[in-house]
Amino acid sequence: MTFRAVKPIDATSYGIDIPENSRNEVDSFIAAAAVAAPALAQQSPKERAQLLREIATQIEASRATLIESACAETALPEARIAGEITRTTVQFELFARLVESGKHLGVVIDKADPNYSPAPRPDLRKMNAPLGVVAIFAASNFPLAFSVAGGDAASAIASGNAVVAKAHPSHPNTCAIVEKAIKAALAKCKLSQDSYAIVQGPDPQITHWLALHPAVKAIGFTGSEIVGRILVDLAATRPEPIPVYAEMGSLNPIFVTSSAIADRSEALAKGIVDSALMGSGQFCTKPGLIFAPNNPEFIATVKSHLATLAVAPLLSKSIAERYSKAISHLASQAKLEVASGISTEQGFGVTPTVFITDWATASQNPELLEEHFGPTTVIITCKEEEFLAIATSLKGQLTATIQGTDADKPESLLALLAQKAGRVIWNGFPTGVAVTTAMNHGGPWPASSSHTTSVGTDAIYRFMRPVAYQGFSQSVLPKALQDSNPWSVPQSIN
Amino acid sequence: MTFRAVKPIDATSYGIDIPENSRNEVDSFIAAAAVAAPALAQQSPKERAQLLREIATQIEASRATLIESACAETALPEARIAGEITRTTVQFELFARLVESGKHLGVVIDKADPNYSPAPRPDLRKMNAPLGVVAIFAASNFPLAFSVAGGDAASAIASGNAVVAKAHPSHPNTCAIVEKAIKAALAKCKLSQDSYAIVQGPDPQITHWLALHPAVKAIGFTGSEIVGRILVDLAATRPEPIPVYAEMGSLNPIFVTSSAIADRSEALAKGIVDSALMGSGQFCTKPGLIFAPNNPEFIATVKSHLATLAVAPLLSKSIAERYSKAISHLASQAKLEVASGISTEQGFGVTPTVFITDWATASQNPELLEEHFGPTTVIITCKEEEFLAIATSLKGQLTATIQGTDADKPESLLALLAQKAGRVIWNGFPTGVAVTTAMNHGGPWPASSSHTTSVGTDAIYRFMRPVAYQGFSQSVLPKALQDSNPWSVPQSIN
Repeated sequence: MTFRAVKPIDATSYGIDIPENSRNEVDSFIAAAAVAAPALAQQSPKERAQLLREIATQIEASRATLIESACAETALPEARIAGEITRTTVQFELFARLVESGKHLGVVIDKADPNYSPAPRPDLRKMNAPLGVVAIFAASNFPLAFSVAGGDAASAIASGNAVVAKAHPSHPNTCAIVEKAIKAALAKCKLSQDSYAIVQGPDPQITHWLALHPAVKAIGFTGSEIVGRILVDLAATRPEPIPVYAEMGSLNPIFVTSSAIADRSEALAKGIVDSALMGSGQFCTKPGLIFAPNNPEFIATVKSHLATLAVAPLLSKSIAERYSKAISHLASQAKLEVASGISTEQGFGVTPTVFITDWATASQNPELLEEHFGPTTVIITCKEEEFLAIATSLKGQLTATIQGTDADKPESLLALLAQKAGRVIWNGFPTGVAVTTAMNHGGPWPASSSHTTSVGTDAIYRFMRPVAYQGFSQSVLPKALQDSNPWSVPQSIN
Repeated sequence: MTFRAVKPIDATSYGIDIPENSRNEVDSFIAAAAVAAPALAQQSPKERAQLLREIATQIEASRATLIESACAETALPEARIAGEITRTTVQFELFARLVESGKHLGVVIDKADPNYSPAPRPDLRKMNAPLGVVAIFAASNFPLAFSVAGGDAASAIASGNAVVAKAHPSHPNTCAIVEKAIKAALAKCKLSQDSYAIVQGPDPQITHWLALHPAVKAIGFTGSEIVGRILVDLAATRPEPIPVYAEMGSLNPIFVTSSAIADRSEALAKGIVDSALMGSGQFCTKPGLIFAPNNPEFIATVKSHLATLAVAPLLSKSIAERYSKAISHLASQAKLEVASGISTEQGFGVTPTVFITDWATASQNPELLEEHFGPTTVIITCKEEEFLAIATSLKGQLTATIQGTDADKPESLLALLAQKAGRVIWNGFPTGVAVTTAMNHGGPWPASSSHTTSVGTDAIYRFMRPVAYQGFSQSVLPKALQDSNPWSVPQSIN
């Protein structure tokens, strides 16, 4: 069977016929990756860094074809795709620097101590080791930055694993270009071509084959709560359960204080709408719930600004249909004020829509408090005194934001939001996730399925496990654990 | 309903009638713990360290009653119980030192950078925060060191969580003494008595109530693979799945080279038997599979040494019955040579038993390659050339040991064992797990359910999650993240 990409801009097909992978093919990719894995695990930090930089170089060399393909397959503007390519290569460079430093190995050396309490201590040395084969599931909404060479794949490769990555069927040609770039990098570094493979096809069974294969030792996923939950459940039914690092999205509430509105009503109203519509509202960090005092001027600016805005068509037919169905269903309900932007008619185009209601209504409407992927958000008027109770009622979030001024005393609300979210934000917008060490992209369920970040260099620790070496002589120890420290990695010595 | 402890030494009851907790009681312990949790999370490093040290002090103050109770409830010798008490207090002191240093908070500060690539970076600061309420399941085989104030509980408290701990029904009086000590420490530190509770009773439903309660955010468990799997499965069925840190035991294979036997046959044979019988063979690190060349002198020493040894009665009637049944079933099989120690007749006494066979036989007998809790091990003769194939066939292990000499080239076997085990050992025995930073107690499934350690200070990271703060002013930030660093915690600043 083969399938083709569909252009969101006009719903016509794009690119070549892509063969869908069979179960046998998927199994053989994984089996071959397992054979290739030990050579990856044995690389020195320098060799690993070289591989990561070579991947960045090869992706950069494919920039023109990637832009053409990704723009066609996603309808995202060229500047966005160009930024994603840069983000992807920068990400590999950041991991290259971390790996080169050896810090990710987390070396701890406790020398033998006959006087240790409660018992004499043998020589113990611990370091992080890769898992073997990691399965990565690419997201629909970032054809590069969260796709087959995105943060999940890059961190799994950086930690020394072989990777089998499920391409998202909405941008298969883009994924194939990336695969070619990575295979070229593997060849340059004299590593097995089996160290990395992508799996193509819309068949949902492919997800099962990957998640249940005994040689797969961990899963990285970015996508919807529904599919994330399927993966978590599949992994738990295995004879040998494995960790699933699923980033499943969020409502990203923004709490707006009266003083913030008094200070900057217009900028705030426009900023919120712009953040909600960025990337056609197809970000996991899209602000989906705005809690604000009932200020007519603020609401009026939201509506007037929205009325001037159109967005690019959505990523796929199914996303566009799900969006339009949810919006029209919500719009038909009483007590919801509906504001609209400019409709995009061609292809998978939709109408940006903002709902306005009060907390008394919203709190009784679970549908309104769900994530709706696409250019929409809900403005919920309430009293500031209600913020704590509202925050208490929220599920886990990737982000939670307070828009206030120095006059506000946000400590209590902040403490509560820090319990609910992986990242708390002051006077900013949640869209835009910096790729940096202090980033945490993840949060309590259902934002993510683990206490880890999928963005930034700390993502590497998801795909390693510690191994302790007890009583070995220097010559037999892995290089990172030797006293002479030939790799010059940081060694924490007690 | 009430129940009583049973003394393994004579199968008579011990101590007071212990009320079994009802579902309502368990729910109310957890709900109260959730209310108490924020105050724990807000402690300064100094306050937390003070609590940990006060717990150690209170447990030490109960030493005499703990020894009396634990010796009666477990039949373990006094020196072992005394050592466990010391191990427990030392463990709290180690966590106190770590928490005092603030290192566990993992603070990373990335200051705003308008020139950051691919996009300007806001001020981002990340630290680890506790989860809320953690449920701990105590082990049967360590009435103190892996019980309601053992490594799991200590690391959960050290990271700032409220704890509800399921006492093992085989030593309920000992657990109650420990609970009293911890409650006294909470009172001294002016913290809510609800910050810590134990749950008593043999009803298996208690496990379900704890694992499924929505306020429980993580589970720590030390015990059998069967119960560990139940917990992993329960956690996965929750509307909000939670992590289960289960340490479920292991076969702890030892690979003995010919040169090791030539060098120290007698010491090796005795050392292996002693390690297998230590604590009546009731350690998760008991060596359960010994692969060695077929050396008649070595085997003869194993048998003659074993013949001189008896062990204390097992911990409970069910453990003793399961052991005796498995041993007599194995002993009835062809091609297995059976060697015995001295039988202990009273109470839950059993006969130490060593099986001797070859790899051709053992590889066809799955029962032989399972963990049998109690004073038994299996010596499997084979050729050294078979070691790699044998190691490849093994499941995940807590430990794997090579007994060799400098003349051996163990690199290939070591590399393979490091993939199978959490700790690899050279010329030592796996029993005895040092409580230190470089320890890793955990391993690939079924040794444990996560890529973490349950022993040593790194166990603390199981019960925390990162939270990033974006764009906040100094006065609003948590103290650990402020530029002025009032707690003097390590800050990694980029």
